[in-house]
Amino acid sequence: MTKLILDLSISLDGFVAGPNQTLEAPLGEGGERLHEWVFALESWRKPHGLEGGERNVDGDVVQESVDATGAVVMGRRMFSGGAGRWADDPNADGWWGDNPPFHVPVFVLTHHARETEVKDGGTSFTFVTDGAEAALEQARAAAGDADVSLAGGADVARQYLQAGLLDEVQLHVVPVLLGAGGVRLFDGLEPPPIELESTRVIQSPSVTHLRYRVTRGVAP
Amino acid sequence: MTKLILDLSISLDGFVAGPNQTLEAPLGEGGERLHEWVFALESWRKPHGLEGGERNVDGDVVQESVDATGAVVMGRRMFSGGAGRWADDPNADGWWGDNPPFHVPVFVLTHHARETEVKDGGTSFTFVTDGAEAALEQARAAAGDADVSLAGGADVARQYLQAGLLDEVQLHVVPVLLGAGGVRLFDGLEPPPIELESTRVIQSPSVTHLRYRVTRGVAP
Repeated sequence: MTKLILDLSISLDGFVAGPNQTLEAPLGEGGERLHEWVFALESWRKPHGLEGGERNVDGDVVQESVDATGAVVMGRRMFSGGAGRWADDPNADGWWGDNPPFHVPVFVLTHHARETEVKDGGTSFTFVTDGAEAALEQARAAAGDADVSLAGGADVARQYLQAGLLDEVQLHVVPVLLGAGGVRLFDGLEPPPIELESTRVIQSPSVTHLRYRVTRGVAP
Repeated sequence: MTKLILDLSISLDGFVAGPNQTLEAPLGEGGERLHEWVFALESWRKPHGLEGGERNVDGDVVQESVDATGAVVMGRRMFSGGAGRWADDPNADGWWGDNPPFHVPVFVLTHHARETEVKDGGTSFTFVTDGAEAALEQARAAAGDADVSLAGGADVARQYLQAGLLDEVQLHVVPVLLGAGGVRLFDGLEPPPIELESTRVIQSPSVTHLRYRVTRGVAP
């Protein structure tokens, strides 16, 4: 059964982006720090069209996600950039280039209908205007036996979590405190509490990979 | 060298207490959930004057902290209760009873001078009115070769962290999302980012123990 998995890098104080996001610094001040651990990995570089790179336990975790993913769901701002001009223009181009790193069908949640874009290397962007559940349904169909990866942003993640549609969460916890003003992954969740079950912990010098199964969501 | 160690249970979304703290529910809605893992442990029950209990990997982590702690620093609301009448009365009695679970000297940060209280079982409460650094100095002197435990609350923890006085952080991450309105451990921290180094991860079915060394604080 295809699962919906949220997979994100996060600071120890719970931020997925730093304060003051701009076009030049789309991850906010200090936000790049959350992804440093991944840039040198062979398993990250290869889907990004880059040669070489390191093989280590972090790389294995990334490769596992790459191998398991048959489709991706993301928010519109993650497709086209979260700051500046792009944030306000629903028809903005994606910022992922001609050969995006996904190499599977991507379903973009948006309020504005537009044509599917087929890119090189197996990536396509399909724009879904009838809500989170519909996007997930299309992604599941595209993924076949593989899983659906929920790529973000934080608001989209919260939407799926709160709707009880998220099956697993993998957080790559980076040992830094980004401080006030950033984008929190878990913000504005409504009680009652959502229970999870820890299924795995993998530790490296640069990041701690925490994996959870969502056992009791808000709905249903 | 005596270290200052912050040791707290925290939800996966970063809360140390749930929303709507009251006298009857001092940890807020769902807040008790953060401490369920500890109540059944022999190493927690013994200092609380309770018999029996389980021995397991979580218990070892707790025992390690008990053994290492030579003095405690806490905020005034943690001494006398964080909600209702107690929160507003700087002369309120402590809520720790005649034989508190600390069994070492405790230094309480407050704005109101009052006499030291000596309790049964080795616990004393000394009230420090000249700031966080002075309280730490007194606690260090009392701890001898042992460490100083920073018991909370969140505002006091932030104060020490931001002042560059915190040496280590141990977070017991409980797999629950408490949702909006609770008390966040890391809230209102001012940039620049604070770097930590992961020194240990211990995993059990009910909680993940993350231990960090603070490598670069804000000051100095």
